Amino acid sequence: MTDRISRFLAETQPETPCLVVDLDIIEANYHELQRALPLARIFYAVKANPEPEVVARLAALGASFDTASRAEIELCLEQGATPDRLSFGNTIKKQKDIAWAYAQGVRLFAFDSDAELDKLIEAAPGASVFCRLLTDCGGAEWPLSRKFGCAPAMAAALLLRARDAGMDACGLSFHVGSQQTNLAQWDAVLAEVAKLFRRLREDGLELSLVNMGGGFPATYRREVPNTDAYGNAIMGAMTRHFGNRLPEMIIEPGRGLAGNAGVIQAEVVLISRKDYAERKRWVYLDIGKFGGLAETMDEAIKYPIRTGRDGGTTGPVVLAGPTCDSADVMYENTVYQLPLDLKVGDRVEILGTGAYTTSYSAVNFNGFAPLRTYCI
Amino acid sequence: MTDRISRFLAETQPETPCLVVDLDIIEANYHELQRALPLARIFYAVKANPEPEVVARLAALGASFDTASRAEIELCLEQGATPDRLSFGNTIKKQKDIAWAYAQGVRLFAFDSDAELDKLIEAAPGASVFCRLLTDCGGAEWPLSRKFGCAPAMAAALLLRARDAGMDACGLSFHVGSQQTNLAQWDAVLAEVAKLFRRLREDGLELSLVNMGGGFPATYRREVPNTDAYGNAIMGAMTRHFGNRLPEMIIEPGRGLAGNAGVIQAEVVLISRKDYAERKRWVYLDIGKFGGLAETMDEAIKYPIRTGRDGGTTGPVVLAGPTCDSADVMYENTVYQLPLDLKVGDRVEILGTGAYTTSYSAVNFNGFAPLRTYCI
Repeated sequence: MTDRISRFLAETQPETPCLVVDLDIIEANYHELQRALPLARIFYAVKANPEPEVVARLAALGASFDTASRAEIELCLEQGATPDRLSFGNTIKKQKDIAWAYAQGVRLFAFDSDAELDKLIEAAPGASVFCRLLTDCGGAEWPLSRKFGCAPAMAAALLLRARDAGMDACGLSFHVGSQQTNLAQWDAVLAEVAKLFRRLREDGLELSLVNMGGGFPATYRREVPNTDAYGNAIMGAMTRHFGNRLPEMIIEPGRGLAGNAGVIQAEVVLISRKDYAERKRWVYLDIGKFGGLAETMDEAIKYPIRTGRDGGTTGPVVLAGPTCDSADVMYENTVYQLPLDLKVGDRVEILGTGAYTTSYSAVNFNGFAPLRTYCI
Repeated sequence: MTDRISRFLAETQPETPCLVVDLDIIEANYHELQRALPLARIFYAVKANPEPEVVARLAALGASFDTASRAEIELCLEQGATPDRLSFGNTIKKQKDIAWAYAQGVRLFAFDSDAELDKLIEAAPGASVFCRLLTDCGGAEWPLSRKFGCAPAMAAALLLRARDAGMDACGLSFHVGSQQTNLAQWDAVLAEVAKLFRRLREDGLELSLVNMGGGFPATYRREVPNTDAYGNAIMGAMTRHFGNRLPEMIIEPGRGLAGNAGVIQAEVVLISRKDYAERKRWVYLDIGKFGGLAETMDEAIKYPIRTGRDGGTTGPVVLAGPTCDSADVMYENTVYQLPLDLKVGDRVEILGTGAYTTSYSAVNFNGFAPLRTYCI
């Protein structure tokens, strides 16, 4: 919670639920990350929070952008980013969207398969392409599946084929998992990446780029290492495995830039018990899993919650959303304590909600409108 | 898949992904349910598919509507339903929304707690209210949590308090779980409901209504009992527990009316392997968990999938969506087989997707637009 957000909420009393994003925090996070990793180019993962004012602020700071779709590329161009600062980072693209992006001047593309490479050769001739490696990292709070990337030997073969087809086969990418708090994960993957660099050098292909994706955390209920610790861990691993022959580096923070810049204000709609004998209260908010808190799926992300009655006696609660869907329960197994004198109609603040909230929000489920954002 | 939907897709070649809903199927389902349960009033659960044309067709047939929010009530009134045919069935309502609904003429409300009853007494004086029971039913494919309802003894106390406050304390509701295929579940809950009717009669409160919610299935990959079997099971249980003193009955089908009326057409964006040695292909569609297939969460609902190449040799696949979110994988553990000659750019049909798809769809995740619907 920042002073500016507190003041905005107090003065404006907006309709709930809503998200308030403090753009100055995003700017500060950007500078902090730049200081911690001066050799890396920062590509903001637009999907984390595609609010136009967020993109505009970062574009003005000189940031680059990791985009997932034609609409995200359009958004970045409209908000002042130039095509040379855009990466079409989704490994699953329609060929017509690749062609469209190429026509706009986008020249950096991700891939991890033969079929995707075929599309790039056809629709983006000569463009720079990097191949995503399949990683198997523990320690991330938002789960990574096997959805993205391919095995190292396959990546090597794909890059050689890309070069032979006239593409700029420039490098490798990986992702250690969103909200990654185990700093050793970068070292393990970078060892693998450096090995592939050497192997491809023997085949006459000199790679020049390591895209290490995101993973930079926001602070939720648990303390996380600070940005300098991430910078040191990554630069330590880079020099350990690449020596003084450092390739270009790209990082793609989303949560790490926007997460702690946003606060959702919600209203308590109902407080009840399932039985007069039960101690645990059910607290129902006017926002839930389908209204922007999708990352509470399997109780993965645990947001801190503040009320106007904090400081007194608290008791355990189950936290749920306002829809008629029984899956719309945020926290039932995770221990949450809220004040015993919390009342229906009270406003509560859900902290650290600047990333992966508004854009996940359902378009119209149960007739509830998507989450509204105020950028300040 | 209906002939009308096949024809529409062939003639129109709509942009994918899209949902096509055959309104005649919804009408046929409505009549079939009426025939199977002639004593029950049918309240369509609007949340299942809030497309205005769906609501309009059912309103014209004389259906009633189970609504979850102010916006759903507005929708029903706009599409021709009268207020006496609406139930505000969400147990989690803001008081101002209750007052608004009451002003429109809505007189039937759900509740399951003291705090919600307080709001109803204040904002909807004299209205008919029914209390939702907490049920613990197995056999449903979409999980039921403890989110809704209260213990039987608490329900009895709440209804007596409602009566003493001048409300029409009219009955009880329950829900056996969505896509419930174990017909014995209704009998177990109705035994409990009948016991509460008798107990409250001793306290001088004559209940008149049993709202048995939804649970009526759509057909996905597994065969389900037919509508007559549901009708027989429910009427058998009603007469077994209520004798010849049958209360009014309400059912709230959503999936049961709209599920098999809709087909999603999607496009194959990518087919790949994670390693050249792996046999299992990854098939990425232009729709996924965040674009309308939210009910594939935990691989709960298993939609049948058709391609234009069905009939030849097939192989196992993992099915995933187009977004950069690693959680956007529909089926990894469930065995899905698709033709070996399936190609990037092929169209596929996802059957049984008329319910709980469009409205769940994310507003803008990864820049992908919400799922578009064509009603025919």
